[in-house]
Amino acid sequence: MKFTLYMPTKVFYGKNCVKEQAKEFSAFGNKALIVTGKSSGKKSGALKDVTDILISLSIEYWVFDKVENNPSLETVKKGSIIAKANQVSVIIAIGGGSPIDAAKAIAALSVNNIEPIELLTTSIKIPSLPIIVIPTTAGTGSEVTPYSILTAKQFNTKKNFYSPYSFPTITFLDYKYTCSLPDRVTIDTAFDAFSHLLESYLSNKCTKQSAIYAIEGLKVFANCLLAIDERKFTDNIRDQLLYASYMGGLAITLTGTTIIHAMGYSLTYYKALSHGHANTLFIGEYLRFNNQADKEKIENVLKILKFSAIIDLETYLLKNIGKKPTISQEEINKFATLAMTQGSVKNNPRVIKESDIIKIYQKVLLR
Amino acid sequence: MKFTLYMPTKVFYGKNCVKEQAKEFSAFGNKALIVTGKSSGKKSGALKDVTDILISLSIEYWVFDKVENNPSLETVKKGSIIAKANQVSVIIAIGGGSPIDAAKAIAALSVNNIEPIELLTTSIKIPSLPIIVIPTTAGTGSEVTPYSILTAKQFNTKKNFYSPYSFPTITFLDYKYTCSLPDRVTIDTAFDAFSHLLESYLSNKCTKQSAIYAIEGLKVFANCLLAIDERKFTDNIRDQLLYASYMGGLAITLTGTTIIHAMGYSLTYYKALSHGHANTLFIGEYLRFNNQADKEKIENVLKILKFSAIIDLETYLLKNIGKKPTISQEEINKFATLAMTQGSVKNNPRVIKESDIIKIYQKVLLR
Repeated sequence: MKFTLYMPTKVFYGKNCVKEQAKEFSAFGNKALIVTGKSSGKKSGALKDVTDILISLSIEYWVFDKVENNPSLETVKKGSIIAKANQVSVIIAIGGGSPIDAAKAIAALSVNNIEPIELLTTSIKIPSLPIIVIPTTAGTGSEVTPYSILTAKQFNTKKNFYSPYSFPTITFLDYKYTCSLPDRVTIDTAFDAFSHLLESYLSNKCTKQSAIYAIEGLKVFANCLLAIDERKFTDNIRDQLLYASYMGGLAITLTGTTIIHAMGYSLTYYKALSHGHANTLFIGEYLRFNNQADKEKIENVLKILKFSAIIDLETYLLKNIGKKPTISQEEINKFATLAMTQGSVKNNPRVIKESDIIKIYQKVLLR
Repeated sequence: MKFTLYMPTKVFYGKNCVKEQAKEFSAFGNKALIVTGKSSGKKSGALKDVTDILISLSIEYWVFDKVENNPSLETVKKGSIIAKANQVSVIIAIGGGSPIDAAKAIAALSVNNIEPIELLTTSIKIPSLPIIVIPTTAGTGSEVTPYSILTAKQFNTKKNFYSPYSFPTITFLDYKYTCSLPDRVTIDTAFDAFSHLLESYLSNKCTKQSAIYAIEGLKVFANCLLAIDERKFTDNIRDQLLYASYMGGLAITLTGTTIIHAMGYSLTYYKALSHGHANTLFIGEYLRFNNQADKEKIENVLKILKFSAIIDLETYLLKNIGKKPTISQEEINKFATLAMTQGSVKNNPRVIKESDIIKIYQKVLLR
């Protein structure tokens, strides 16, 4: 056996965990920057829970609620300017993957005197500010990863900023903050979580340690399949989706993702598909492409999910997500070239060439 | 669902991981104290591997090899005096549970101006020195826990020193360092690991998160049962025992242990039984006592281990460990009183009174 484990985030999981562990907020100085999107923090109730606590602890705070879906380098720069100007001592992320990823970049930029684009090209030297994370979706896994996915016009795609300093210091996971999500977001993010579990398990970086989390998450995700199909998001299902997503985060922290993510980025960047929607389109073809290399594991996934064949899983997924985008052969060629620039391509169970990626895009989007 | 997770140790698992990750030793200043026992560091080859690396990195080091089985407060004081006198910046533990636990205490005492007994009665204020751990047994789990079990004459027993600062910073797990262990130590430590997995799983602090590790460890331990019975400790079995032990550590970090540990301590303190030997004696009676409260889980454990009844598991365990000590009723009464002072008593699945503990001691040791 050979593996590594490093995931230093302190995790509190459970209903009302933010209020119950309010004292945890007091360990990081008395000035906080809350990083969030336009609405999820407010709608979910998480923003109010946090600001109530900060007020009660006499912690001064600023709210940066300008994080868009798929945050840009410009956005994280704006956030870091506010953090620096006010000398905040902790960054608090409230929201889905976008605010969480933005918060990681802001926490790094607040203490390292570099431009945002350097996050993507060099290693940061000075440890980031402490980061507290409260997810309001169940999908990203970012609450327990060191990854921050940023949209870089300079590269015409989304790029992964990674640092051991970017693990959240504390993460609070409470499914109640996900209860106000529309069905569409619930499903897209749930499938994003599924993609993490699947890609991690099939990754050639999968280890005995990472597989524990992937299998555990897949088992719990399996319990949610019918509820997703029927749009019956009870508290219990929300709880299980959040747990499965968290397991996905633990798993990809150890393995990274594979070509699904690499291929999906361009559909988000150029076609404005949500991240989960983009990824999900490729899952069936991804499994067929890798079936020779990883037959036993793929059969195990199907068994856990109680599907008898890849096509059944694919049909289920496609039925539950949005439409395929229209795309030209020229775009496919460009997207394939961009996909090959992503490090995650190397993690694919079967060695993959640009021509293979073009074929997958064609099979998925042109037929 | 409700649980917490915090285990910040960076773990490298695999054959030759110490040498392969040699650069990791360079992150903690240039003066190290190696804490080890009389012989395990040398016999296992781990001490030479580490000192070779320290020399190559120009890190000055001192070797404190005076750690006895079940380290005393006096011993950790001696170690901390050497650490302070030489202003070391990192503590490196090489050995079984005793050197690892001693290293955690020394790392705390080196920077906190307190007497060793205060480790057991108050919280330490200043973060311990960084701790690097290389286990040479497969049983303790201490390589990934914040616990340090010290022998305190003042309390006539072993006591648990716990601090969030006592998690090892880095742990290197290589089964090859366990290959020189005699069969007796291999089995006693393997059963200690089993006891961690079992007690954690049945603990009333068991959560969905901790159960992942306990079940994973039990499954791998199950693969080793026949090899233990036949004393056939191949490399593959050593690897699996180390992994199971590590899983036990991850599990008890989240749950603590239960009455088996509380009851075993006096057999170590007063009767000089090894920790694993002492614990194992109680496992059968512990399962019978808790069978009503936790029937489903106990049946699951038996199923994983492929035993059809508690008595079969008990017979297997007792056949493979040393004899029961002779004991008087007076001693039993004293040991029961001492056991009730251990915090782990509260974690038992079924509420347990001193009279229950007396009965278990009687059933196990007087019949």
